[in-house]
Amino acid sequence: MVQRISLAHGEGGELTHQLIQHVFLKSFGDSEQVQLDSAIVQCPTQTIAVSTDSYVVKPIFFPGGNIGKLAITGTVNDLAVCGAIPHVITAAFIIEEGFEIPKLKKVVESMAAEAKNAGVTIIAGDTKVVEKGSVDGLFINTTGIGWIQEKHRLKPEAIQEGDSVIISGTIGDHGIAILSARQEHGLLTDVESDCATLNHLIQELVEEIEGIRIMRDPTRGGLATTLVELCEDFHFIVELDEVSIPIRNDVQGACDILGFDPLYLANEGKVVLIIDPTNQHKALEIMRKNVFGQNASIIGHITSSNVDTGKLLLKTPMGTTRRLHRLTGMLLPRIC
Amino acid sequence: MVQRISLAHGEGGELTHQLIQHVFLKSFGDSEQVQLDSAIVQCPTQTIAVSTDSYVVKPIFFPGGNIGKLAITGTVNDLAVCGAIPHVITAAFIIEEGFEIPKLKKVVESMAAEAKNAGVTIIAGDTKVVEKGSVDGLFINTTGIGWIQEKHRLKPEAIQEGDSVIISGTIGDHGIAILSARQEHGLLTDVESDCATLNHLIQELVEEIEGIRIMRDPTRGGLATTLVELCEDFHFIVELDEVSIPIRNDVQGACDILGFDPLYLANEGKVVLIIDPTNQHKALEIMRKNVFGQNASIIGHITSSNVDTGKLLLKTPMGTTRRLHRLTGMLLPRIC
Repeated sequence: MVQRISLAHGEGGELTHQLIQHVFLKSFGDSEQVQLDSAIVQCPTQTIAVSTDSYVVKPIFFPGGNIGKLAITGTVNDLAVCGAIPHVITAAFIIEEGFEIPKLKKVVESMAAEAKNAGVTIIAGDTKVVEKGSVDGLFINTTGIGWIQEKHRLKPEAIQEGDSVIISGTIGDHGIAILSARQEHGLLTDVESDCATLNHLIQELVEEIEGIRIMRDPTRGGLATTLVELCEDFHFIVELDEVSIPIRNDVQGACDILGFDPLYLANEGKVVLIIDPTNQHKALEIMRKNVFGQNASIIGHITSSNVDTGKLLLKTPMGTTRRLHRLTGMLLPRIC
Repeated sequence: MVQRISLAHGEGGELTHQLIQHVFLKSFGDSEQVQLDSAIVQCPTQTIAVSTDSYVVKPIFFPGGNIGKLAITGTVNDLAVCGAIPHVITAAFIIEEGFEIPKLKKVVESMAAEAKNAGVTIIAGDTKVVEKGSVDGLFINTTGIGWIQEKHRLKPEAIQEGDSVIISGTIGDHGIAILSARQEHGLLTDVESDCATLNHLIQELVEEIEGIRIMRDPTRGGLATTLVELCEDFHFIVELDEVSIPIRNDVQGACDILGFDPLYLANEGKVVLIIDPTNQHKALEIMRKNVFGQNASIIGHITSSNVDTGKLLLKTPMGTTRRLHRLTGMLLPRIC
């Protein structure tokens, strides 16, 4: 087989057929399971969750992962945080003419491995090839479908004063890993992306713990933007305690040097949740036993609910409080 | 609002929020229905069909449609031909920095209009923005979910000698329309793309007619590649009758001048089906009453089934027969 993608690989003919056989089906499993056009899926429930994301991360390979791993973890986590059990996923590739097939194989193998970790099946795919210069290497879209179990429905409407905000671990790792991989700012760190599928951890939580009001994965826009959106959508005020927010020393150091605020850096393997305080210690215990939740911490509380204008406040180590807004302007394009 | 997309529109912060509010939600419906992250969907059945496609068509606007309309029709048709009733669809955009927002709005409005025609709801979305030069304008991924009704399950295993092959109309319109819009070959035609959602026509067929064995939409790779794949996958031989295949004079003329074979040109509003001959006339009647099936014709027959190697044969007007293969090599990149 040739070693580079040509335009003919995207024409739906013989070379597309070969690419599917030798690259995609080889990693994604036997052709019985993977339907490359439409896939028929049996759902054990009649309520499903659906999430879609395109991945344009630059560079394609970075410490801790690559675009393929990220395309699985990101979509799986989007489903998991809405209380769904991720089950099937589609994968659509847009590939630049000339892209090296061994690199594509590596990406596809990472997707297959991460899908296996998460327990999801890749059920349908698509391949488009565009001329050199019309896309930067490789972009991937994944769309995931999960089953919603009624008994695990989250209840954001129950959010009330006194509820706690928990994050599953350190913030900003993915952002700094990508920045470091780009070598644009002369930044050299050992920080790896945190990208990981959290569905097993989250499923244990929703099965064992009552009182989880809502969950989110604080990706693009970071923890601050994610919480601002929750505050506004569900009309409550959160006060974060800055000193409680877990952050690696090297991430904080990189942020200090480059002038980034870690609260706005992307995370790809973290979940933030709002929980009834009577259940918070049990939740922390479950999270800390899991490799992806070792540094789970209570980082703030709901100080008011049912307000007209929800907002996010940050209590600084000096005891002052400032309001945090959505990310504005440009921070790090193509972080995911 | 600014008139061009900036990188900050893709950062998940304030500008992304504004883009979603002012462009996407405005066209895709009220924010109650459209969940921009994960959407929760009630299925009336527990068997679903899922299809994904990325659209990279060049140019973005062409006679008879644009990338947005195509992104809906293509995915809706993929679901419909597998016997599913298309119901919900996700839309993920990869946009080049500097792309004009009025153009984006036009694309998004076409998507909304075509989704309405098809009776599908756009339920989840994603927006990524990449630097100028990292993508050619705008690429869209849509993933559709449809409901499978047991009684409408197609039965390709029942395909047998004597079955008829029907196409719903003229072939090659989309291919020639795109080629003409590119103005690369000095080709000037009035041919418009046939891109259209066929789910209503198909639903009428599966409800009214028994004996439909299988259906396909002959898009990339054209009618020939689509039928070769069916022949190989289900082990039968089709003999097409070249003179029966409907084709517009101007499409045939353009093909003659440029050296293209219309059997390999993409169609975006056609369905090809294999049917028990006792039902073929009723099927033709239903199709011809529909604006998208006016030129429906019987174009060939199954001459053998259960063979080791399925193949596609073409009987020419001279009475000779030649074997057709999958599209090989490069014909028209970025046709969809």
